[in-house]
Amino acid sequence: MTQAIGVFDSGVGGLTVVRELRQRFPREEIHYLGDTARVPYGTKSPRTVERYALTCQEFLLAKQVKLVMVACNTASANALPALQKRAEVPVIGAVHPGALAALEASETRHIAVLGTLGTVRSGAYEAAIRERDPSAKVVTRACPLFVPLAEEGWGTTDIAELTARRYLSELFEADHKIDTIVLGCTHYPLLREVVAKVSEELCSSPVRIVDSAAAMVSQAAEYLNAPTANSEAAKGALHCFVTDASRMEELAPRFLGETLDSLELVDL
Amino acid sequence: MTQAIGVFDSGVGGLTVVRELRQRFPREEIHYLGDTARVPYGTKSPRTVERYALTCQEFLLAKQVKLVMVACNTASANALPALQKRAEVPVIGAVHPGALAALEASETRHIAVLGTLGTVRSGAYEAAIRERDPSAKVVTRACPLFVPLAEEGWGTTDIAELTARRYLSELFEADHKIDTIVLGCTHYPLLREVVAKVSEELCSSPVRIVDSAAAMVSQAAEYLNAPTANSEAAKGALHCFVTDASRMEELAPRFLGETLDSLELVDL
Repeated sequence: MTQAIGVFDSGVGGLTVVRELRQRFPREEIHYLGDTARVPYGTKSPRTVERYALTCQEFLLAKQVKLVMVACNTASANALPALQKRAEVPVIGAVHPGALAALEASETRHIAVLGTLGTVRSGAYEAAIRERDPSAKVVTRACPLFVPLAEEGWGTTDIAELTARRYLSELFEADHKIDTIVLGCTHYPLLREVVAKVSEELCSSPVRIVDSAAAMVSQAAEYLNAPTANSEAAKGALHCFVTDASRMEELAPRFLGETLDSLELVDL
Repeated sequence: MTQAIGVFDSGVGGLTVVRELRQRFPREEIHYLGDTARVPYGTKSPRTVERYALTCQEFLLAKQVKLVMVACNTASANALPALQKRAEVPVIGAVHPGALAALEASETRHIAVLGTLGTVRSGAYEAAIRERDPSAKVVTRACPLFVPLAEEGWGTTDIAELTARRYLSELFEADHKIDTIVLGCTHYPLLREVVAKVSEELCSSPVRIVDSAAAMVSQAAEYLNAPTANSEAAKGALHCFVTDASRMEELAPRFLGETLDSLELVDL
């Protein structure tokens, strides 16, 4: 099987999923679509997000991908059923893998989810976690500053730390038993260290950080070509598409860990 | 004449222009459109911004407005000629009034413009300022964190201050003679105090802050009904439209200084 994987996000954030994919399954060919003309999805209504997500998926399905990865928590939270209904290949979202990973990590079953406003509002993480463990306690918090902090490359600055403290302190004040935090937005891995540091300060016991990007790659594993032990093997091609010129080329290395080979503007 | 004024922005920020309008010309009827389905314009390409702005203007023209105010610096910077070409009523952008007000305020003729990436990239402020005074020196800086800071209601926090210091310090280091700062985005008036405070710290002499929202209302004055001396007179109606549900209702009071009477969802 030589078909590629299709990955989409509203913008550049989904490249953290591609990074994880390429580290663990380097031979896979990938088509990545960043819907930069309509970014961000996180502040938009479910109806609008679903409409945009379906358009993105159609573009990838036309490329004959064997698997669609919705590398955007907001789109996963609001549009996954609609996306799966319209595809004949598997469609993997970010929320269920993130929820599962959180339940595996947590001992207290008190879990905090950080995400965009759209993801938080959807209630998708609560639903996914409590579907598997009805006794679990889930609190969520929208962190709108995290996305521009990640894009500015300020993910490890004092500003990021103050911001994280402001967002997280309420959570820990309200619930001292939280032991697991889900980074429920593909931008947030760039603030992972700051979130971990602030959580440790605010909480007496250790806090585990779960990255939904990594979790969804784990769930996709069954559909992917086994990684070769030979790390010298040629890497699969990464074809990158955007719906608007924007800053994709400049920002990509920060999220992807490598520069883009190809970038094409498409009209959707 | 009883025709209304049409005002549009990519989202909620343009309400700072409406606020100014209603303070100075309280009897005017206003149609405000926030293109919340496509917000933000600031990171998008000129071609895309122009396309969106034309759609917004068409909606307002269909309401028979006597004047269109482009309460979005990014749209003004990238689409004003196209907008003016398609309208038979006057179309007032944010950039020229802001540039003019800056030149009136500045003694050193060294001016700093803060705006979105789209506004900064367009070079529109430099062009508008130097068209009137070729000897003026203009530096620009994109401040992407300012928009979410304004929307979170964090415009006067320590985080806003640190962020402003980070953005502004480079400007003043590179040019000690800057005496005027233009708030070249309709969100930024919510950070006006912080920008003023940080500027004073960084610069030995006083720095003037020019608000493009106020400047464009001054320029619009000639097309508007004279304000009545009787402050008890009934206020003109404000009709508010959005292209996506989003947080308009929640955020509006922060930008507008009053709650919304009416809010209607429209499909563009």
